[in-house]
Amino acid sequence: MNQAETSVMTRSGVDATSAAVQRWLESFEAALRDADTSAIAGLFLPDSHWRDLLAFTWSVTPHRGAGQIAQALARTQAATLARGFAIAKNRTAPRRVRRLGTEVIEGIFEFETAVGRGVGVVRLPASEPARAWVLLTSLEELKGFEEKIDARRPTGSAYSRNFGGDNWLDQRIKAQAYLDREPTVLIVGAGQAGLALAARLGQLDVDTLVVEKHERIGDNWRKRYHSLALHNQIHVNHLPYMPFPPTWPKYIPKDMLGDWFEFYASALELNVWTGSEFAGGTYDTAAGQWRAVVRRADGSERVLHPRHLVFANGVSGIPRIPSLPGLDDFAGEVVHSHSFTSGAAWRGKKALVLGTGNSGHDVAQDLHSPGVDTTIIQRGSTTVVSVDPSAKLNYALYDEGLPLDDVDLIATAATYPLIVRGYQLAVERMVELDKDLIANLIARGFKYDLGEDKTGHQMKYRRRGGGYYLDVGCSQLIIDGAIGLLQFDQIDRFVAEGVRLKDGSILPADLLVLATGYYTQRELVRRLLGDAVAERVGEIWGIGPDGEMANMWKRTAQEGLWFMAGSLAQCRIYSKHLALQIKAIEEGLLQSR
Amino acid sequence: MNQAETSVMTRSGVDATSAAVQRWLESFEAALRDADTSAIAGLFLPDSHWRDLLAFTWSVTPHRGAGQIAQALARTQAATLARGFAIAKNRTAPRRVRRLGTEVIEGIFEFETAVGRGVGVVRLPASEPARAWVLLTSLEELKGFEEKIDARRPTGSAYSRNFGGDNWLDQRIKAQAYLDREPTVLIVGAGQAGLALAARLGQLDVDTLVVEKHERIGDNWRKRYHSLALHNQIHVNHLPYMPFPPTWPKYIPKDMLGDWFEFYASALELNVWTGSEFAGGTYDTAAGQWRAVVRRADGSERVLHPRHLVFANGVSGIPRIPSLPGLDDFAGEVVHSHSFTSGAAWRGKKALVLGTGNSGHDVAQDLHSPGVDTTIIQRGSTTVVSVDPSAKLNYALYDEGLPLDDVDLIATAATYPLIVRGYQLAVERMVELDKDLIANLIARGFKYDLGEDKTGHQMKYRRRGGGYYLDVGCSQLIIDGAIGLLQFDQIDRFVAEGVRLKDGSILPADLLVLATGYYTQRELVRRLLGDAVAERVGEIWGIGPDGEMANMWKRTAQEGLWFMAGSLAQCRIYSKHLALQIKAIEEGLLQSR
Repeated sequence: MNQAETSVMTRSGVDATSAAVQRWLESFEAALRDADTSAIAGLFLPDSHWRDLLAFTWSVTPHRGAGQIAQALARTQAATLARGFAIAKNRTAPRRVRRLGTEVIEGIFEFETAVGRGVGVVRLPASEPARAWVLLTSLEELKGFEEKIDARRPTGSAYSRNFGGDNWLDQRIKAQAYLDREPTVLIVGAGQAGLALAARLGQLDVDTLVVEKHERIGDNWRKRYHSLALHNQIHVNHLPYMPFPPTWPKYIPKDMLGDWFEFYASALELNVWTGSEFAGGTYDTAAGQWRAVVRRADGSERVLHPRHLVFANGVSGIPRIPSLPGLDDFAGEVVHSHSFTSGAAWRGKKALVLGTGNSGHDVAQDLHSPGVDTTIIQRGSTTVVSVDPSAKLNYALYDEGLPLDDVDLIATAATYPLIVRGYQLAVERMVELDKDLIANLIARGFKYDLGEDKTGHQMKYRRRGGGYYLDVGCSQLIIDGAIGLLQFDQIDRFVAEGVRLKDGSILPADLLVLATGYYTQRELVRRLLGDAVAERVGEIWGIGPDGEMANMWKRTAQEGLWFMAGSLAQCRIYSKHLALQIKAIEEGLLQSR
Repeated sequence: MNQAETSVMTRSGVDATSAAVQRWLESFEAALRDADTSAIAGLFLPDSHWRDLLAFTWSVTPHRGAGQIAQALARTQAATLARGFAIAKNRTAPRRVRRLGTEVIEGIFEFETAVGRGVGVVRLPASEPARAWVLLTSLEELKGFEEKIDARRPTGSAYSRNFGGDNWLDQRIKAQAYLDREPTVLIVGAGQAGLALAARLGQLDVDTLVVEKHERIGDNWRKRYHSLALHNQIHVNHLPYMPFPPTWPKYIPKDMLGDWFEFYASALELNVWTGSEFAGGTYDTAAGQWRAVVRRADGSERVLHPRHLVFANGVSGIPRIPSLPGLDDFAGEVVHSHSFTSGAAWRGKKALVLGTGNSGHDVAQDLHSPGVDTTIIQRGSTTVVSVDPSAKLNYALYDEGLPLDDVDLIATAATYPLIVRGYQLAVERMVELDKDLIANLIARGFKYDLGEDKTGHQMKYRRRGGGYYLDVGCSQLIIDGAIGLLQFDQIDRFVAEGVRLKDGSILPADLLVLATGYYTQRELVRRLLGDAVAERVGEIWGIGPDGEMANMWKRTAQEGLWFMAGSLAQCRIYSKHLALQIKAIEEGLLQSR
């Protein structure tokens, strides 16, 4: 009776909140069944939002406005045959909550389609619960291809007590070797994106190989700078199927996360080749498969023929080295933040850090701590947010105490206009909480901004993957002058002993760390798959024309090519949808383009 | 409203089942407060049972009968100051269930004591809910020393983003080295017992080192025979804090479990020295600490001075090699099942397996599969139970769909008379389910029994740790004659070519596998700590005079010496209680003897 305090019980035992959701679902199902566009439109507010994850559209598809929503639903329902809409059992019951400043009834529901089972979220304004403001529909599983977890877990009869035959370990070793078969899916990169997707595909019995250029799984984290820890809290960051232990710290340090990735691959029985680099590929349209070259740890090359190629190598991409005037003359050491590990070796020396994103600030703080005379160089204007309390505001949903699956579902209900509005509201509170920090930074000459539409760091992450700093102490060091601040446009050129400013003075330096980010995945595509494929696919990451992340987690213009990237939470959530699409193609339920 | 279907709601919103439990708890608290022995006795059936886990008695203490229970409660309450008895929040609500053939109301409750917080279980006969039939009281945590999990998880501020200082990895490496400090607790053995206890102690900030003689954690499983898998289902076998993934098979294969143990130690941040053997120790009563010698992987010796020494080395004990007439004459190979890995190398040869426990049967089946001519030799009468469905009956409680913590609590409520009765009832059904198997085995000349009181394999496990086989197919091979069966008392002596029977015939053999079990922990104590300590402590494992497991999970007659053993489930459950006792001693809340 969790709802007892917030809901009024009716005689039938169903509370008023649930009753409103149930009524809406019944009306919705009836209108859908009749393909009655005007009846459907009547169930939505004029300015309403529907996001579909595969269930109706086999893609990640946002819609806005009752008219557009009704037309799209009626059109897609013919093939979808969605039915059986009901409040979801064993999930959070409908409840009254405040979303984007509006009092709503929010309900999680379930339904089925011709090919699968779905879940969704509907938000009804409390003041007008007969019409939906927000609707999410999400395909959760394909009928006949359910995940083999919990009650459906394998008996293990193929290898447990297989007297005289292969045991589990024998079978795992053979599965990983790919001596006599081809993987259906080749994933490039064993970071959170690659591992989460491989785990999901494994549950769908899709034969998947992950190649990782580092020697050990997790090295993409281990090899980063000494003081690195995740910038958001642990409960947002779980991978699918295997949550982090409850004993772990709030902010996971890099080595701990790296080790977990390694456990995870083994515990989820993923096939991963470490020390193995994807060297390039071409797609054979007639055969419907790739010719993919993988360079193994021993220097040998193996040509594979997967039907699907997934780029999950965003994090371990190619460092971007900007062209800097006079840099060749600089006598000190130049290192990209990618390769920077610790400031301890530079004690007593002078360092410059170019870049004011997270890496730039963390590297500067890491250098400053053991006594390196450090100056940070700012190129573009930067959003700065305190990691606690401000940056936590964007994860407020994850603090409501709901099961993770339910929060993930609610979080995915937002389309672009709702996301923008949500971040704007959060930013309003952040700038209030951080007002002294911000004022002091500006007073110090730090160029500060909140993004083009005051959405702060989260939209910068979505739009360009950078341009912000989640402050864990470096801003105060800059404010206090303990770490120097130099604007890039004050620089004339680099010289042997350091950097010469436009006023003629010279700032001496022994080290320059380039915290200048990475090439985008598009550049990786260009280098590894060629210009034609890169042009065909277009932008990767960033906001696409429909407001969704461009080319993420859905079919692209290049048959058999997929992109998987994002935060741990995004990888946890959308790995399911990407895996379902590949499975549906393999089972003939979906065209590959 | 989970209880809606089984309970009648009263006007106050509390169902009748919960109301009965609440009334009993109120009466119980009042009687306890007044130390009113006769009022307490009036709250128990004449033949009732109370098991206390530390909360009142600081030991594992069973009681039987209203009179004895009332006296013990009144006597211990003076120091315990138990109060605040109430139906436990966030746990399974009181419900009607059938236990040992009796319809009862079973409720989980919480309470506090002078030093800690407890939980318990009360069973009220449905026909007479004012009096308890079964009561469990269990100390769950010490005030001020709560486990640092979930909402209390560490912030990680000591190492996350510790700019210029030690990061998490640096700190872990230093913690494991013990260069400048002594562990408070030394655990011998990194199997389920040692790992579960170390994890619990870690949560209580008790500095703990585990020494494991194998090269890798988990090798105690990996190095066993090729076809080994756990004989009970995965959902019974979780370790504390970190459940097995939902993707894993029902019966976990040995290598998968071994790898998990290795992950577990790392993920739970346990300090483990592998390749390190505890070589012996002496207790310094005056100093209140051990002098413990550990032989490291590099051959060096390290002398440690822990205050507590825990033997958690049951599983990896010393193989028992029986004296067999003429064995020295046998020209074939003799190997203990401990060192047996696979039958494949013996294809086309003849093998004898001495022993009809689980290992004997599994080894025989492993030999038979690749075509080894195999005969199993039976010494004592053996209980045989089909692993599915019969052996699962003892875990029926774990199939009721309750949260694991709640099942564990309910399972621990049973004292010896209840356990015996429970197993007898289960065995009645098992022999019915397995009746053909049993009849065929007996017809084949297999000596079969159900234990001295028809409690089957589970009480054999508790009493002597063996004497049974959970059948996964070998019994049918014996029945069919595919695997030979020889009674030990038919043997005259071993000879060069095999074994000579009393009838003068010779059964030739190339291999003899001794599936003859292991020395008890008492023998390990004798060898490693000396005769005096072994005599002082007495029996280890088996049923003690009070019906509880002898010397398990509680203080022993040797100050600072503890024993931790048992199944994965027992280790999960009782590791908490053992850890709480050590913590209480370290904090001065409990005398060490």
